[in-house]
Amino acid sequence: MALRWGIVGSGRIANDFTCAVQIHPEKNHKVIAVAARKLSDAQGFAKRHNIPNAYGSYEDLAKDKDIDIAYIGVLNPGHLPVSKMMLDHGKHVLCEKPLAINKKETEELIAHAKVKGLFLMEGLWSRTFPIYDILTDQIANNTIGDVLQVNVEFGYPLAGVDYANVKEEAQCATMNIGIYALQFSQYVYRGLKPISVTVSGHLNKYGVDDATTIILMYPNGRTSVLTVNTRVQLENCATVYGTKGMLKIPLFWCPSTMITPSGTIECELPTSTANFTLLRSNGLAYEAEEVRKCLELGLTESPKMTHAESLELAELMNTVRQSLGVTFKQDGYSMDY
Amino acid sequence: MALRWGIVGSGRIANDFTCAVQIHPEKNHKVIAVAARKLSDAQGFAKRHNIPNAYGSYEDLAKDKDIDIAYIGVLNPGHLPVSKMMLDHGKHVLCEKPLAINKKETEELIAHAKVKGLFLMEGLWSRTFPIYDILTDQIANNTIGDVLQVNVEFGYPLAGVDYANVKEEAQCATMNIGIYALQFSQYVYRGLKPISVTVSGHLNKYGVDDATTIILMYPNGRTSVLTVNTRVQLENCATVYGTKGMLKIPLFWCPSTMITPSGTIECELPTSTANFTLLRSNGLAYEAEEVRKCLELGLTESPKMTHAESLELAELMNTVRQSLGVTFKQDGYSMDY
Repeated sequence: MALRWGIVGSGRIANDFTCAVQIHPEKNHKVIAVAARKLSDAQGFAKRHNIPNAYGSYEDLAKDKDIDIAYIGVLNPGHLPVSKMMLDHGKHVLCEKPLAINKKETEELIAHAKVKGLFLMEGLWSRTFPIYDILTDQIANNTIGDVLQVNVEFGYPLAGVDYANVKEEAQCATMNIGIYALQFSQYVYRGLKPISVTVSGHLNKYGVDDATTIILMYPNGRTSVLTVNTRVQLENCATVYGTKGMLKIPLFWCPSTMITPSGTIECELPTSTANFTLLRSNGLAYEAEEVRKCLELGLTESPKMTHAESLELAELMNTVRQSLGVTFKQDGYSMDY
Repeated sequence: MALRWGIVGSGRIANDFTCAVQIHPEKNHKVIAVAARKLSDAQGFAKRHNIPNAYGSYEDLAKDKDIDIAYIGVLNPGHLPVSKMMLDHGKHVLCEKPLAINKKETEELIAHAKVKGLFLMEGLWSRTFPIYDILTDQIANNTIGDVLQVNVEFGYPLAGVDYANVKEEAQCATMNIGIYALQFSQYVYRGLKPISVTVSGHLNKYGVDDATTIILMYPNGRTSVLTVNTRVQLENCATVYGTKGMLKIPLFWCPSTMITPSGTIECELPTSTANFTLLRSNGLAYEAEEVRKCLELGLTESPKMTHAESLELAELMNTVRQSLGVTFKQDGYSMDY
């Protein structure tokens, strides 16, 4: 039977996720409802995407008994409360990254899903791209020897994006795009915990970081250098350096290509003629399918992005923000999250 | 009249520098002497390079009245004492990088040259490559807009090089190759002083760094991220990111190519059939010619690598080593250099 999706939010990412789900055959995935804070927005969205039900509040969608899983595509501060509401109404949840604003919120959300016995996944779509599996294989097969250095650059100008880099929306370079660089490092060095997290950054006029560099040092001098910038376009490659060679992944957060010592590996993205608004959003189809597979297996978390990994990321982002002095109201009145 | 060179040291870099000088016509440059600690080494070197005089001590070369300028190609701990000796005997000095072990030594050497009224230059050959002038022009011409991010990677395995990464020779990743990354950042952001220097690194069994990352933050959030590693081969590009595009310089420490938004610029290196031992050492010919031009103009320092810049670099390397806890006997018994 098809997995029945409810889309929460009607912005660009909700649009793209819906387009991506609809790449799949209807026997596997169906988008059956959408909710926005304004009913007219939801109705417009439903019409554009041929979705049967449109709701003018998130709660109305939560109450729709036909929905199996809610996709949470609202702004960051809504991730915890809206995800919890969906869980409270018996829905599984796929929530956009970051899962929540800080470690405390993340723990709260994961605990809530566990109590309800429902599926919860942070929408870190990168992890569901086939190139990530190939990366694991390449490292395991010793293609580049002992991995000692990971360099990731992620930068594009976000000054013109109204919700981005604004404290009230709990947005900053680290949580907006830095999270992708952090997850990449954690993915490559899986099983290793950083010994140290060294940070330097620049804060914008809103008091949030817009240029952040993070050095993660793992045991035996294994190093990751993550350059994040929301003022300039960077090359946005991730490179994994080993004692015998390197693996280079252009557009590492949504990759279709990996350059290896023995040649370039290509994984064409799912094709679609839908109106995507963000780069390579058709790749969100991988994430939707990963969710379906997990639910079919009766899992409550995805092995591609586990709860433990979401917590690890949340803790790292806490550390980075603490180093930079970037706090949100969700952190409370002290830096002691 | 030709500039008459005396070569101090008979190792690989001295070999390559001599080959490079001899690319130039004899009317401009002549290598007239070489000195090594063992006379037989100097004699073998002189024979191979067709040099008239060979000395078994550096002092003998210092006393040779026909020499205009000494090229110091000895190991790091010798840079200060041997350069001073040459200055004491009225020779101009071109000394391999790093000019000295720490800031205090660097100040001492520069002061010595000033007192003697003689030319002194740190052999940071990179600065004399034509691509560096073109880089300056590109930035000045606003080709890439406002420069906000500089990323440099420099890594190659040095574990097998016996003098490298050994505390007794005052060698470490920072001073061995990190210096090139540091000078690049300082070159791009000339006139700006770093607001902060943030460092993370790993120390080898000798207690010196073999993987070092340096984040330099300049005013207005201008950032440099320098990744240095002597355990793995990195890509070794420098990239300058601006608000309108990027400039990419492969092999940034001895470049012949720059990739710009409007195409690739090539500057062929001087050609030679000599037996160079290190990568692109024919480019040392640029450095030799820069020295000749400076002396012809009666300068005591090169505008391409000024004393102030050598001091800046020495100070940065002090800071980096202090952060890492890497000290040499030249630093004295405290970390207070």
